[in-house]
Amino acid sequence: MAELFNGLKSYGSNNFLKELKGKKPFFVCVIATTATSRIPDISGAGATSELMEYTPAGDVELIAWGELRCCEIPPQTVVDGDSAPTPAMLTKAVLELTDAPYLVVNAGSRINPDIPYIKLADGKYGEDIRTGKALKNPKKIFEEAKLISGELSKNNDYLVIGESIPGGTTTALGVLTALGYDADFKVSGSKPFNPHNLKKEVVMEGLTNANLLDGIGNIGKIDPFEAISAVGDPMIPAVAGMVFGATVPVILAGGTQMVAVTSFIKAIDSNFDFSKICIGTTSFVANDESSDLFNILSQVDDIDVHVVNPNFEKSSNDGLKNYLKGFVKEGVGAGGAMLMALLLGYSIEEIRDKVEELCD
Amino acid sequence: MAELFNGLKSYGSNNFLKELKGKKPFFVCVIATTATSRIPDISGAGATSELMEYTPAGDVELIAWGELRCCEIPPQTVVDGDSAPTPAMLTKAVLELTDAPYLVVNAGSRINPDIPYIKLADGKYGEDIRTGKALKNPKKIFEEAKLISGELSKNNDYLVIGESIPGGTTTALGVLTALGYDADFKVSGSKPFNPHNLKKEVVMEGLTNANLLDGIGNIGKIDPFEAISAVGDPMIPAVAGMVFGATVPVILAGGTQMVAVTSFIKAIDSNFDFSKICIGTTSFVANDESSDLFNILSQVDDIDVHVVNPNFEKSSNDGLKNYLKGFVKEGVGAGGAMLMALLLGYSIEEIRDKVEELCD
Repeated sequence: MAELFNGLKSYGSNNFLKELKGKKPFFVCVIATTATSRIPDISGAGATSELMEYTPAGDVELIAWGELRCCEIPPQTVVDGDSAPTPAMLTKAVLELTDAPYLVVNAGSRINPDIPYIKLADGKYGEDIRTGKALKNPKKIFEEAKLISGELSKNNDYLVIGESIPGGTTTALGVLTALGYDADFKVSGSKPFNPHNLKKEVVMEGLTNANLLDGIGNIGKIDPFEAISAVGDPMIPAVAGMVFGATVPVILAGGTQMVAVTSFIKAIDSNFDFSKICIGTTSFVANDESSDLFNILSQVDDIDVHVVNPNFEKSSNDGLKNYLKGFVKEGVGAGGAMLMALLLGYSIEEIRDKVEELCD
Repeated sequence: MAELFNGLKSYGSNNFLKELKGKKPFFVCVIATTATSRIPDISGAGATSELMEYTPAGDVELIAWGELRCCEIPPQTVVDGDSAPTPAMLTKAVLELTDAPYLVVNAGSRINPDIPYIKLADGKYGEDIRTGKALKNPKKIFEEAKLISGELSKNNDYLVIGESIPGGTTTALGVLTALGYDADFKVSGSKPFNPHNLKKEVVMEGLTNANLLDGIGNIGKIDPFEAISAVGDPMIPAVAGMVFGATVPVILAGGTQMVAVTSFIKAIDSNFDFSKICIGTTSFVANDESSDLFNILSQVDDIDVHVVNPNFEKSSNDGLKNYLKGFVKEGVGAGGAMLMALLLGYSIEEIRDKVEELCD
């Protein structure tokens, strides 16, 4: 179909975007951690395994202050001595360019950022999902998130909700699998080599320990909050709660983790009207041959996907060029944030220039 | 001068209000506690001395959920067996009536509310100001609050900022005195009998222990953050930070505690343009013969005051009628919230009816 903007490729109707063009957005970044990210080689959302849980805090510190406070080494993906900067830089570039308002929601993190944030529930981070006991009270996170987005909906025209949670595609795989979807070898990852077998082993161990193996292949069998409690993370009920509480359209800014959010939403309300939400993501996720967002999403429902390509092949920054090799791909709402900038009238070139300026 | 609304009395120019009429507000309630409120008889912002520190949490739980979660006994002022409900009921009535968006900012409380809130700095509550060491890091609270109001200013036309902090008029007296103002016997209080001598003794002990006695009568002598660190509370730097960070007009919703905020603002920036802010308060504070908001405020600067009278003499609720006898007077932004409702087109009768409906 005809694209609304240069740099954008839309799957599904464009009506949603036409409605939001030039309107007032509010950007929310939901951060969280689970001990799952400590499993060696499972995630690339941090320079080392030990630094993984500093990534969400570091990401939002970079956005808020332009500098790190929780640690010294910036969030980044490192493979064989090569590295790519955190997608927080893309999001920060958009927020600076557009002057769109934002807040950070902390759904539960081991390392709390040194910025002001909205604290949800008890702020407890998730456990290793191999235990089958990842979260104590996802319902409370969900209810509190609902309240927040209800308030933020009042004077804003739409919400853009991103996430930063290392190991988040593994917990996404856990929730999708528990809820009956076939997501094996389909979730994304932050490194060029996607450790699908490891992710699946971790999820199976968790489902076994939680006695939830009957969820496999059986949509509607497992209670959604039970699935989150067993093998989920704090981000999923937070973002889903915000979707239920919102009275304005919502752009889910992310890749396959946001697909897990839609599966959770569908499990809570099988008649949910998905025309009021869409997924905004990057071309790095959409074009990734080691994952399949569209396949999983189509199992959930008919949900629009809008893909932004910042054309980093035109960039002079080597770190950004590594995105083209499968480093990072998405996170901190980068794709949805760029979509928001397009909706606010900025060109993809202006966005890329601003990202480069910040990264250089 | 001619009043803009029935139930409102304005001191200063009406231009500010004319500009905001019908515009989009965002309401913020800043909560905090200090151990000062445990001093027997110093505050009436709670049923007993022990319950005092539960009042801010209880207030915002009532607003968010319509029920208490942190404790069982609702915040209220009790004198000789007679009682008046917390002003949170007035604020809740306005928020329900107008559907205006709000968030709670927790600047540092001993009892954290069981709601989602914006956490500032380390969340540490204030000590007893008699120690002269009330707060460790008011500058951090101030800087983080600035960031929050900067974001909330972007898609809203003005901010209304209230507070809930028991013993807050005593810490207000502390800060005003340290900064050189004559506020003796002039700050408000939540009970019909205002314990001015006790408040003064507490403040003098704190100033002595902090070696700040040279502030008395000497405006500009003491560093404002030093004054807060010695004898202030977490609310004052939070609200002041929000004023500095805001790029839209601000209504300071409160009585003499908000005057202390203006004195702190003036001490930070002697050229601050006070025409972009005003104080919105209740007739119970403005008409109180045991305190003098106008006198202290005039020492600070030329700042508009807008006084709302909900005419509780027309109410059938005995608790609300006790406001006329000097119970409560103000808090949780009640006066400024009612002003916001007037600006949004609601009549003082509609506001009072809604308050009665909630209290009955």
